[in-house]
Amino acid sequence: MSSDAALHYARDNRERFLSEMEELLSIPSISTLPEHQPDMVRAARWLCDRLQDMGVQAETVGSEDYPLVYGQWLQAGNAPTVLAYGHYDVQPVDPLDLWTSPPFEPEVRDGNIFARGASDDKGQALTMVFAAESYLRSTGALPLNLKFIIEGQEESGGQVIKEYVRDHGDRLSADVAEVADSGLLAPGVPTLDTGLRGIVYTEIHVHGAAHDLHSGLYGGVAPNALNALAAIIARLRDERGRILIPGFYDSVQMPSKEILESWRRLPFDEAAFLRDEIGARSLIGEPAYTPYERMWARPTLDVHGIAGGFTGEGAKTVIPAEAIAKVSMRIVPNQTVDEVFDLYRHYVQEIAPSSVEVDVRLIHGDNPVVVPEDSPAIRAAREALQATFGRPAVLARSGGSIPIVGIFQGALGLSSVLMGWGLPDDNLHAPNEKFSLENFYNGINATIRFWERLGSSATA
Amino acid sequence: MSSDAALHYARDNRERFLSEMEELLSIPSISTLPEHQPDMVRAARWLCDRLQDMGVQAETVGSEDYPLVYGQWLQAGNAPTVLAYGHYDVQPVDPLDLWTSPPFEPEVRDGNIFARGASDDKGQALTMVFAAESYLRSTGALPLNLKFIIEGQEESGGQVIKEYVRDHGDRLSADVAEVADSGLLAPGVPTLDTGLRGIVYTEIHVHGAAHDLHSGLYGGVAPNALNALAAIIARLRDERGRILIPGFYDSVQMPSKEILESWRRLPFDEAAFLRDEIGARSLIGEPAYTPYERMWARPTLDVHGIAGGFTGEGAKTVIPAEAIAKVSMRIVPNQTVDEVFDLYRHYVQEIAPSSVEVDVRLIHGDNPVVVPEDSPAIRAAREALQATFGRPAVLARSGGSIPIVGIFQGALGLSSVLMGWGLPDDNLHAPNEKFSLENFYNGINATIRFWERLGSSATA
Repeated sequence: MSSDAALHYARDNRERFLSEMEELLSIPSISTLPEHQPDMVRAARWLCDRLQDMGVQAETVGSEDYPLVYGQWLQAGNAPTVLAYGHYDVQPVDPLDLWTSPPFEPEVRDGNIFARGASDDKGQALTMVFAAESYLRSTGALPLNLKFIIEGQEESGGQVIKEYVRDHGDRLSADVAEVADSGLLAPGVPTLDTGLRGIVYTEIHVHGAAHDLHSGLYGGVAPNALNALAAIIARLRDERGRILIPGFYDSVQMPSKEILESWRRLPFDEAAFLRDEIGARSLIGEPAYTPYERMWARPTLDVHGIAGGFTGEGAKTVIPAEAIAKVSMRIVPNQTVDEVFDLYRHYVQEIAPSSVEVDVRLIHGDNPVVVPEDSPAIRAAREALQATFGRPAVLARSGGSIPIVGIFQGALGLSSVLMGWGLPDDNLHAPNEKFSLENFYNGINATIRFWERLGSSATA
Repeated sequence: MSSDAALHYARDNRERFLSEMEELLSIPSISTLPEHQPDMVRAARWLCDRLQDMGVQAETVGSEDYPLVYGQWLQAGNAPTVLAYGHYDVQPVDPLDLWTSPPFEPEVRDGNIFARGASDDKGQALTMVFAAESYLRSTGALPLNLKFIIEGQEESGGQVIKEYVRDHGDRLSADVAEVADSGLLAPGVPTLDTGLRGIVYTEIHVHGAAHDLHSGLYGGVAPNALNALAAIIARLRDERGRILIPGFYDSVQMPSKEILESWRRLPFDEAAFLRDEIGARSLIGEPAYTPYERMWARPTLDVHGIAGGFTGEGAKTVIPAEAIAKVSMRIVPNQTVDEVFDLYRHYVQEIAPSSVEVDVRLIHGDNPVVVPEDSPAIRAAREALQATFGRPAVLARSGGSIPIVGIFQGALGLSSVLMGWGLPDDNLHAPNEKFSLENFYNGINATIRFWERLGSSATA
């Protein structure tokens, strides 16, 4: 099998793969902060060069500021075509003082590489890049046709790829998408995600007086934008996390009984989860649902940030005139962004204190998606995972949204294989993000095997 | 009368008084921000030099970092002694982008001087300094004995003056204190404050998970510090502003019927107040009380700032692990700081969601004070105000706390004359703080007259 030579090559080149990953992780490609725009171009250029070096036709497309990296190798005749997706942009790094090593100076400690983007998603995207290199440099060919599309706005709305997919459906046509942006349920437990929550990301702007006022002089008569905002937020969900917006749950469709039963058989150690994974004193959540159900199949609402008034050191006695909250909801089948945002906006306006003006804005939204659980690609992925990890893959869901999966499905009619290499304690979107080197190498190997099985299954 | 010469001198030196005020206003003496500590020393030194130049014995005392300016002129024999108080520290300036001219580059527009500290309190403190200069340079003497104490921490807890008053009672002994840190009820309406609310300034710290978490992966099970904080804040007061802490109003004692009736005779144009003074769509407040009662005689609660999570541009999907709110209560006779903070802390702990840890901290506190309405000093002040403004003074109260009034009363047994020159729209603690030049000059004149009347009344 050609995969033997590729696996051999991958083993011999581990050190170099690691040092090349460190190069990419050193580029601070934070897409949500405009000042990092030049870093987006650097990161895209770096990936494009890698693909060209190994013989993949590659170019940057779609946007000069937040380019997509597109690559193709189409010399496998009638073999199926895989569209491989990842993203090179990363989340912001604050609070910076909680990082043990600087976020853009990658450091290996205890078998993990620590850096912003290590797991989400540069390290994972590179498993596919290096799997391709392993084939092309060892055998000169891939076992199937391969297209790459690696984006630079996954963490900030993904506008560029949305437009590119809409306008270039032919170029991106494939039999299946492969998305490397998820994770294992636990170390050593290979996992295929078969569904993803969507997201409705909003801002609530509250406007009270014309300017900040002295609370001694005006306290008791002047509206306070932060008090009003807190009153609104407090009525969005109850203490357990149940969302209080009327009609919010009407469209929610839970997974089938079989899937829910299979989730109940998955291990979940609540004490260890609390202690080691999130470091909290107790879980919140709807009591009628298990933790996996709450994370994968139930909609949720979280406040991400509140700004307003004086938050510096010391005591300033202002009545703040303006306050803003960033609030998002994770939504599930069969909720839609439009329906949920509509319910939410009307409810917020209804509960807003009459002394303030409230503006509710949709920042971005993605609908939830469900992946078919039985297809040649899923079968090939399960075989590849079994061969790599020595145990069968778990069919799970992910609570996070990966917008591209819905876009591929909607615009290209493509279903996705969600095979990822992160771990629950990788500190995604948080200080000290890491990526397990064992999973990095296993990810390359599993991808090599997946492509070979899919290539041969479909030509058979 | 010696005041004629002093008044004449004051009129002749208006331009210089203004340009000297501009010098002091140019020093960014923000006491709550540690990086401005050197500016505190500069401002204190500037005041000390002015007093020495005119023949007042002056020195900086109490602290090297946040010095008090102490001055004395005690050559008036048996005449009474006035202890004149002001402060040279100012509030922070954010949001800076809302200032029309830079906060520490004073600019005169339409008869007002715009700068941070113009009204609160550098401009007001200088009315007493320039009144003294007007006497000393025109007649070589003051009509009474005068002590100055000008502090640099009024906006940040006032620890230095508290300790200095406690330890140097003899040095500060006087017959009455004069405090220039309040205002007129409206342009042309001279006002004596006869009571002040106190303050209990706190922080609520909420701690959820060990670090920020990805809301897609953990939304639904992980506690969210900002949601929990909003739930707490929403239960501190109702939409009208009534405080929901059990027992909170038990000690509240309203002013006498006569005082309340005199307040009802004061003009209050709600539409103009909303439009011109605070710029809001409606007032909040307890419906059973008039706006003056709510501002002067009722306790209140305001959130000044909330920090936590991601508040930058764009969309970051964190579940914040930590959140902090700055919350203060204005308290009234006969509430005390200790009693109110105790009720507050217990209530916050009781209503805190069980999934988070909550820490409630007292940042600083001052008890409310009431000033006797009939005394030789108050009579002299009323005469001086009548002579200067051509109409009788209103006996009001102030909703803001001036901590020093309680300290003088408690530690020195001194009552205070609260005769100030600000206006309701001076934008205290807010962008575009200003001070009316007419009031600046009237303040100097009224102080000149007050000293003469008090000096002669008591020797009579």
